[in-house]
Amino acid sequence: MLNELFTPSVQHALDIVGIFVFAISGALLAVRKNFDVFGIAVLAEVTALGGGIFRDVMIGAIPPAAFTDLGYFLTPLLAAGLVFFLHPHVERIQVGVNVFDAAGLGLFCVSGTIKAYEYGLGLTSSAALGLATAVGGGVLRDVLANEVPSLLRWDRDLYAVPAIVGAVTVVLCIRFEVLNAYTSGTAVVTAFVLRLLAMRFHWRAPRAYNRRSATAEESPSVI
Amino acid sequence: MLNELFTPSVQHALDIVGIFVFAISGALLAVRKNFDVFGIAVLAEVTALGGGIFRDVMIGAIPPAAFTDLGYFLTPLLAAGLVFFLHPHVERIQVGVNVFDAAGLGLFCVSGTIKAYEYGLGLTSSAALGLATAVGGGVLRDVLANEVPSLLRWDRDLYAVPAIVGAVTVVLCIRFEVLNAYTSGTAVVTAFVLRLLAMRFHWRAPRAYNRRSATAEESPSVI
Amino acid sequence: MLNELFTPSVQHALDIVGIFVFAISGALLAVRKNFDVFGIAVLAEVTALGGGIFRDVMIGAIPPAAFTDLGYFLTPLLAAGLVFFLHPHVERIQVGVNVFDAAGLGLFCVSGTIKAYEYGLGLTSSAALGLATAVGGGVLRDVLANEVPSLLRWDRDLYAVPAIVGAVTVVLCIRFEVLNAYTSGTAVVTAFVLRLLAMRFHWRAPRAYNRRSATAEESPSVI
Repeated sequence: MLNELFTPSVQHALDIVGIFVFAISGALLAVRKNFDVFGIAVLAEVTALGGGIFRDVMIGAIPPAAFTDLGYFLTPLLAAGLVFFLHPHVERIQVGVNVFDAAGLGLFCVSGTIKAYEYGLGLTSSAALGLATAVGGGVLRDVLANEVPSLLRWDRDLYAVPAIVGAVTVVLCIRFEVLNAYTSGTAVVTAFVLRLLAMRFHWRAPRAYNRRSATAEESPSVI
Repeated sequence: MLNELFTPSVQHALDIVGIFVFAISGALLAVRKNFDVFGIAVLAEVTALGGGIFRDVMIGAIPPAAFTDLGYFLTPLLAAGLVFFLHPHVERIQVGVNVFDAAGLGLFCVSGTIKAYEYGLGLTSSAALGLATAVGGGVLRDVLANEVPSLLRWDRDLYAVPAIVGAVTVVLCIRFEVLNAYTSGTAVVTAFVLRLLAMRFHWRAPRAYNRRSATAEESPSVI
Repeated sequence: MLNELFTPSVQHALDIVGIFVFAISGALLAVRKNFDVFGIAVLAEVTALGGGIFRDVMIGAIPPAAFTDLGYFLTPLLAAGLVFFLHPHVERIQVGVNVFDAAGLGLFCVSGTIKAYEYGLGLTSSAALGLATAVGGGVLRDVLANEVPSLLRWDRDLYAVPAIVGAVTVVLCIRFEVLNAYTSGTAVVTAFVLRLLAMRFHWRAPRAYNRRSATAEESPSVI
């Protein structure tokens, strides 16, 4: 039943859109890091598929969907090709990319939570894996690019919180047996809008309470 | 039979203690790296659960215990909350934290080795996975924080050796069929005491034999 | 049938050779990074076995071969020991090491592709996992050493392309049902020779098209 929230073709199309925009963000970072064309393709694949692969390994969905659906594998290559040839134009529409990335975040935190629950995990673990699905690819992207994951940094607009809200909304819907296409769609839109607002108003999460000045401790590479 | 070395509740309580102290070390590094509250929580979770998740994926214990036992998942969040509010006090008792971390090292190298053996791995592989259980979370912590894993650095007190000794003690006990609560407890205490001695006397492992001066090769980030 | 491309003992001997040379490259980087003897051993193990472990987790070959075949586990320790005592000599024969590394690349991209196909993956995914088998260990090595993976950098001689050619050759042979010891051996040699030529003539892959000057964007750690 959970499988039929959306028709399979709609669900698949949404997945492809999310994978595409995540791949764009990976490819753009690769260009900024001066990687070659294969580095761009690898970073696009890892960013787009990393979170879902991690979730599938955790829940025992082997082989992961990324290796059984050719569309999932080829979409990041298409994104890498676009960025390779058109990256100055892609960077110029960075705002548009960010909006799509927010959409991907919303889609993946919801679909990841639902898939984990369908494989028998508890509600809390399902929400955690939904969050991991949404943000895992970006963390892998930053680790491969040898940067501190932007997910963890205080000087970036909120990224985890919208995904957490989306995932928790889904598990609450499951708990109270009201999960359907409308409520899960609402969860997607909630996470999406929260992320847009966080970018618009530069919402940030607090650092450790009563933190003393950190300037002496910070290496240039962290900033 | 191996399952009943300790009563389940004792084993579970020991696991929670180990997870808690590993989470503290992850959260403290996150504060030093200037991460926000979500970065602190993520680094606490990864440090505490990463080694066990890696072992469970390798031996096919899917989903990993970290996703089936709510206590395993919530304990690092508690540790992250404590560090968030009280980190100057936690840093002041760094010695105490290190002692608990040594206890976690001893517990996890032994319980990781036993679990891998119960899942059918050979003695050598079981010891290797016991070591990975004990040190894997710390390696992931350092990779996410964009630092050279302290496990690998020569300028840190011995960390792997106590865990190796504990894991090897366990496989020897299995080999000679004398594994019980007393011998495995001895293995835990041996690893624990070795780590305390390594910290007390700054024991270090040798670097490559006949190494020429390395100053020119070293980047500041390594030192 | 695919299993019998080579006799098992020949296949096993080739695997051990590939693991040994990959471990040498990991151990040499560990010495350059000033790691201690355990860091050298860990980096040798990760470099040699990481790609295969990743492939085995993806295809559900649990526990991975690295944990069921003692020879796979002990070979990197032997390589680490050699580098520990003889590293100035090993560095002097860097050209020889590079030739063996190219041989490992050829062997692993072919054997990884075949193993993934035997576990039921599609042709494209099998080729992707063959590539991951060949290059995954090196990526993990560089991540643990806190460096940008040399696989992704534009200023390194082609590494991925030879492995891609080898893996694609294998899936074409499977597709047209001509895979046997001779054709797969040809794929190994093709990848091997391409890598040697790439090193000899410093072939490099292009960076993003129409890239503006990157000097201002590059941090010292990238170069």
